[in-house]
Amino acid sequence: MRSSNRRPDQLRSISFEEGFAKHAEGSCLTKFGDTHVLCTASVEEKVPPFLRNKGTGWVTAEYGMLPRSTHSRIDREAARGKQTGRTQEIQRLIGRALRSVVDLKALGERQVIIDCDVIQADGGTRTAAISGAYVALYRALQKLVKDGKLESLPLGHQVAAVSCGIVGDVPILDLDYGEDSTAQVDANFVLTDAGAIIEIQTTAEEKPFEEAALFEMMRLARLGINEIASLQRKALGLE
Amino acid sequence: MRSSNRRPDQLRSISFEEGFAKHAEGSCLTKFGDTHVLCTASVEEKVPPFLRNKGTGWVTAEYGMLPRSTHSRIDREAARGKQTGRTQEIQRLIGRALRSVVDLKALGERQVIIDCDVIQADGGTRTAAISGAYVALYRALQKLVKDGKLESLPLGHQVAAVSCGIVGDVPILDLDYGEDSTAQVDANFVLTDAGAIIEIQTTAEEKPFEEAALFEMMRLARLGINEIASLQRKALGLE
Amino acid sequence: MRSSNRRPDQLRSISFEEGFAKHAEGSCLTKFGDTHVLCTASVEEKVPPFLRNKGTGWVTAEYGMLPRSTHSRIDREAARGKQTGRTQEIQRLIGRALRSVVDLKALGERQVIIDCDVIQADGGTRTAAISGAYVALYRALQKLVKDGKLESLPLGHQVAAVSCGIVGDVPILDLDYGEDSTAQVDANFVLTDAGAIIEIQTTAEEKPFEEAALFEMMRLARLGINEIASLQRKALGLE
Amino acid sequence: MRSSNRRPDQLRSISFEEGFAKHAEGSCLTKFGDTHVLCTASVEEKVPPFLRNKGTGWVTAEYGMLPRSTHSRIDREAARGKQTGRTQEIQRLIGRALRSVVDLKALGERQVIIDCDVIQADGGTRTAAISGAYVALYRALQKLVKDGKLESLPLGHQVAAVSCGIVGDVPILDLDYGEDSTAQVDANFVLTDAGAIIEIQTTAEEKPFEEAALFEMMRLARLGINEIASLQRKALGLE
Amino acid sequence: MRSSNRRPDQLRSISFEEGFAKHAEGSCLTKFGDTHVLCTASVEEKVPPFLRNKGTGWVTAEYGMLPRSTHSRIDREAARGKQTGRTQEIQRLIGRALRSVVDLKALGERQVIIDCDVIQADGGTRTAAISGAYVALYRALQKLVKDGKLESLPLGHQVAAVSCGIVGDVPILDLDYGEDSTAQVDANFVLTDAGAIIEIQTTAEEKPFEEAALFEMMRLARLGINEIASLQRKALGLE
Amino acid sequence: MRSSNRRPDQLRSISFEEGFAKHAEGSCLTKFGDTHVLCTASVEEKVPPFLRNKGTGWVTAEYGMLPRSTHSRIDREAARGKQTGRTQEIQRLIGRALRSVVDLKALGERQVIIDCDVIQADGGTRTAAISGAYVALYRALQKLVKDGKLESLPLGHQVAAVSCGIVGDVPILDLDYGEDSTAQVDANFVLTDAGAIIEIQTTAEEKPFEEAALFEMMRLARLGINEIASLQRKALGLE
Repeated sequence: MRSSNRRPDQLRSISFEEGFAKHAEGSCLTKFGDTHVLCTASVEEKVPPFLRNKGTGWVTAEYGMLPRSTHSRIDREAARGKQTGRTQEIQRLIGRALRSVVDLKALGERQVIIDCDVIQADGGTRTAAISGAYVALYRALQKLVKDGKLESLPLGHQVAAVSCGIVGDVPILDLDYGEDSTAQVDANFVLTDAGAIIEIQTTAEEKPFEEAALFEMMRLARLGINEIASLQRKALGLE
Repeated sequence: MRSSNRRPDQLRSISFEEGFAKHAEGSCLTKFGDTHVLCTASVEEKVPPFLRNKGTGWVTAEYGMLPRSTHSRIDREAARGKQTGRTQEIQRLIGRALRSVVDLKALGERQVIIDCDVIQADGGTRTAAISGAYVALYRALQKLVKDGKLESLPLGHQVAAVSCGIVGDVPILDLDYGEDSTAQVDANFVLTDAGAIIEIQTTAEEKPFEEAALFEMMRLARLGINEIASLQRKALGLE
Repeated sequence: MRSSNRRPDQLRSISFEEGFAKHAEGSCLTKFGDTHVLCTASVEEKVPPFLRNKGTGWVTAEYGMLPRSTHSRIDREAARGKQTGRTQEIQRLIGRALRSVVDLKALGERQVIIDCDVIQADGGTRTAAISGAYVALYRALQKLVKDGKLESLPLGHQVAAVSCGIVGDVPILDLDYGEDSTAQVDANFVLTDAGAIIEIQTTAEEKPFEEAALFEMMRLARLGINEIASLQRKALGLE
Repeated sequence: MRSSNRRPDQLRSISFEEGFAKHAEGSCLTKFGDTHVLCTASVEEKVPPFLRNKGTGWVTAEYGMLPRSTHSRIDREAARGKQTGRTQEIQRLIGRALRSVVDLKALGERQVIIDCDVIQADGGTRTAAISGAYVALYRALQKLVKDGKLESLPLGHQVAAVSCGIVGDVPILDLDYGEDSTAQVDANFVLTDAGAIIEIQTTAEEKPFEEAALFEMMRLARLGINEIASLQRKALGLE
Repeated sequence: MRSSNRRPDQLRSISFEEGFAKHAEGSCLTKFGDTHVLCTASVEEKVPPFLRNKGTGWVTAEYGMLPRSTHSRIDREAARGKQTGRTQEIQRLIGRALRSVVDLKALGERQVIIDCDVIQADGGTRTAAISGAYVALYRALQKLVKDGKLESLPLGHQVAAVSCGIVGDVPILDLDYGEDSTAQVDANFVLTDAGAIIEIQTTAEEKPFEEAALFEMMRLARLGINEIASLQRKALGLE
Repeated sequence: MRSSNRRPDQLRSISFEEGFAKHAEGSCLTKFGDTHVLCTASVEEKVPPFLRNKGTGWVTAEYGMLPRSTHSRIDREAARGKQTGRTQEIQRLIGRALRSVVDLKALGERQVIIDCDVIQADGGTRTAAISGAYVALYRALQKLVKDGKLESLPLGHQVAAVSCGIVGDVPILDLDYGEDSTAQVDANFVLTDAGAIIEIQTTAEEKPFEEAALFEMMRLARLGINEIASLQRKALGLE
């Protein structure tokens, strides 16, 4: 049994509160247990310089943590004057994950900027961010269709993410902070609702591990993604 | 009548949700209408270098806006690599306002860092931030007393803030964004619950104005602060 | 009696040396006692990006202190790689104060950049800067008229600034550094020559204060501004 | 057949020139075909602040590309004033990979800084960097033993890395730049010489992919790592 | 004849106004014609980290130009967030020049920071800065002697600097901006009052030049330095 | 006799390996003894903003040291977020030296960026960099001629550089690090192959020195440059 009384293959309580932010074209307050991430999607009718006049759009992401979203306060990146390597790594992952399911040609010369801001952190902020960002992005793209700027949703797959890990030699799903900080192996899975792979990152925290552990974590991830994808669809009124 | 159907001397719907953030020593989600600011107070058992070994504590504040808290997305300061002048001006104001009511000697060699993060903006973010920061600060100081680190609350006065302005030649209280952007005069009042002055900043946006207008705005501010201070006390269970 | 043997309502010896800088379109070496600020106005035939092609001009200000303008040396901001919050706050104030009296439409698509550099500091640098900047700005705008680029001076009011404060419970005018560092209340007034309000900022340094003190400081400020405005006019040959 | 006439499971010509840099405690010029990375290991007899007086050592890594190591010149990060997200992501990966095989307690309060500088790039710089960094690190740690500062090598496993990908639906090993830029799937494997997993990162570049492709790439990676690990041992005179 | 009606070997009108800045331990407003540089020397009773506990002192210099000291306004370095290469080059030169005549051991564990700020520029700012900095430094060191902190002046030689150049094939002394911008060769000489060499920097601006030109410029420099050194002594009351 | 068994007028073993970098238009691995500098020349078909539409080209240079090119590791400038003053001084010198021999008008609206990266340092990196940069630049310009973009080489003179110094009262040529760190006088000469002066920088490290020493170093420099220029021509196949 896990400290949270969850089974190894059990997600935390997960919710997607679509439309949370008044001004954004799409938004979603995403909760994976005590991890709360506000995701917004902002549509801009221009693309970054490297794409100008190429007839294609772009999706990018930025990530941040409020200074006291964590157990002890972390420095405000804006005050330090730069983003940490961890922040950049995460926002690059979010952007890549979402771009992999968007038809950028069909999007046309516009950019969607995804902002994922962690209001409260308890492990798994990047997977919560990706899962919630999909909901915000969907709404923002849907608005473009409603406003007559696009004929149809330029979205291929549904994307969701979840973490897995091995704690005390047991593979488990959706780690909270306490589990994460004692995990022997740490893995993040970004999959489609059908379970196909968009991105996997796995790291041995303590000592190298065998392929079998990766397979077992992958099995757990598929179970979790299946549920998360269903919750995303419900939040979007698609199910 | 104002666009929001408020009387000139009427506040927006204001609420203080104390204890919103799980990890912080004190916290408050503050809403002035559609302006939502998350205020946290973090206690650190050390002081900044300029105060080391001087037997006195410190209170400082940082302020930020989520990129899509606003009508159109603003740049993320952490990505730009620096805070704007506006941000610095506001966080200096918040810190000054709170320090003015704390007995820093009695606080001892520790620092309270106030973080005010605007989740959603609709005018008056700095006054909402100050008012909510007081609630978070109170709780954090109270925790120091409960934990036996302080004998009594090192707080002199109760502090709250509100904006006033002149729109269409009419002095009004607690401007929303639409009013703020058409105001002829803009003023921010930081007062004690008894109406004494901690800080006033007033600016002619259009053309110089007469002293009488300042007096009238001051009268409105006192009315507003009176209500806000009462709501603060209720949120803290003091009334 | 004040340490400087001044009466409470007495200004320091004030002078405006117009045309001090050889290259600038307008310039003024401003002295408020031992506070010496060099103000220059530089005209550029272009506007910042956010104003391009909008048929309006802009006035902005930058402020700096020479590292050894102060009692003990302060870090050079250029070497630190950023301007302090105080610097940004002051330069925003100067810019706002001057823009409030310029007809930006009439100025056309050009920008006036005001540089206020403190050569020597003894309190009240921001109010000296605003007062001297007006003289430099006037000359620069006058040159545009002389050069046939403008038909008439795009200036509404005359603007000047002065500090007031309460020291030892006595309201006084135009504080020097020694007075400023022991003041209970600190206030800066930016007024027109007719005494109308452009900006007021007042802060309790020690404990909250009552409205009556604000009124008394306002009275002193009007007296001071009256004299300063006259000296500005003399420096410009208008009186 | 691949453009380079390699079989799908064939590495490029790989070499490790140990001792390339005169001053460093350990160094290795690493070549994976036309990708050339200079890796140095510098020993410092102190640890970063967060580890002081904790009786443990640290291994960290920095990564850079010479501006004209690439097809078209890239900006010099030192001149831009910051490292890109990609650079930070890679140097974090290198550091993590090496720390996973070092006994930090046994290393004692000292730090090894790994510098990986890309002299010439043709795909797979991060995997070449990790593989070469291991050689440099080994030598630097060996020197600590020779100098009597450590009793035995604080190294658990041997670590090497290689990229795999899917190009034209065919899984291939050790991609060069041309292959990398057309790959449907991109994966980096950091394994021990025994084939256990230290880190895997895999990304769908075009569309989501199935688990079977991951397994096939893993098989290729094991083949490649086996050869690379043997070349590392030869370079170190261990085989 | 030169545009300024000077002979080739004639200096501009040069003056050293010692004690110009009220707060600094030593100061000098230096004028080489229309080039005006304020030099201050600030004494700090500590040394930079790399010299701590080594029983030796340090002299360093910082240099800056007011934004409108020049014909057209230049960016404020503090606002840009970094100093230009030119600025750094000049301040390194000033520091080196002064350190070469100070007995750093005898100075003890204290630092003198020289600030050279260009109030108005008309060519030759770096040579004016060095020459004036010597006067400020002398006074600051003399104050240490007067205050009983040093037994005698830790100064070896007197140092002064002047520029030379070749304009229209004629070697000339002490170029103003107009001459500097059309010079074929540009040279800066830092010499002792006895004409010994501390630093020479010479650059062909147009095409390579012969040794004879260097000798002739050296001859002019000695003439100029002789006069400048005498003016320095007069300003210091030594002659 | 020198520690390296060289005569005072003897260069270190010098080599130019032209074409070292696969991607650059011109490149040269330059060795002055144990000082190894990789120089690349990158041609861009555009000019910096200040030259746009002026019908002239530009040559600029950047310089860097690998962190462990030196005896003890130096900070990575990209990680520190800024280039040191020394780096900027050197890259400005390299750029100036090369521009002095290029006909920028004839080059047309394109820019050549020279990158000089120190792989290993043992004194004299800036003179090695200039000498090698000339070889890289020559090749890059030659390629423009071969590609039909230029009719003839826009090069006036051949440029090379070497250091001299006075160690133990003896003037010597081409100092290594050990000599450089004990030199009484340090000088860098940038000359044409015919011995004409492009740039000279000389500094007294210990005490002021006399003109005769400068002449003697100049004589040594001419000897050295003569040999270096011959080696450059051989590397380029011109001799």
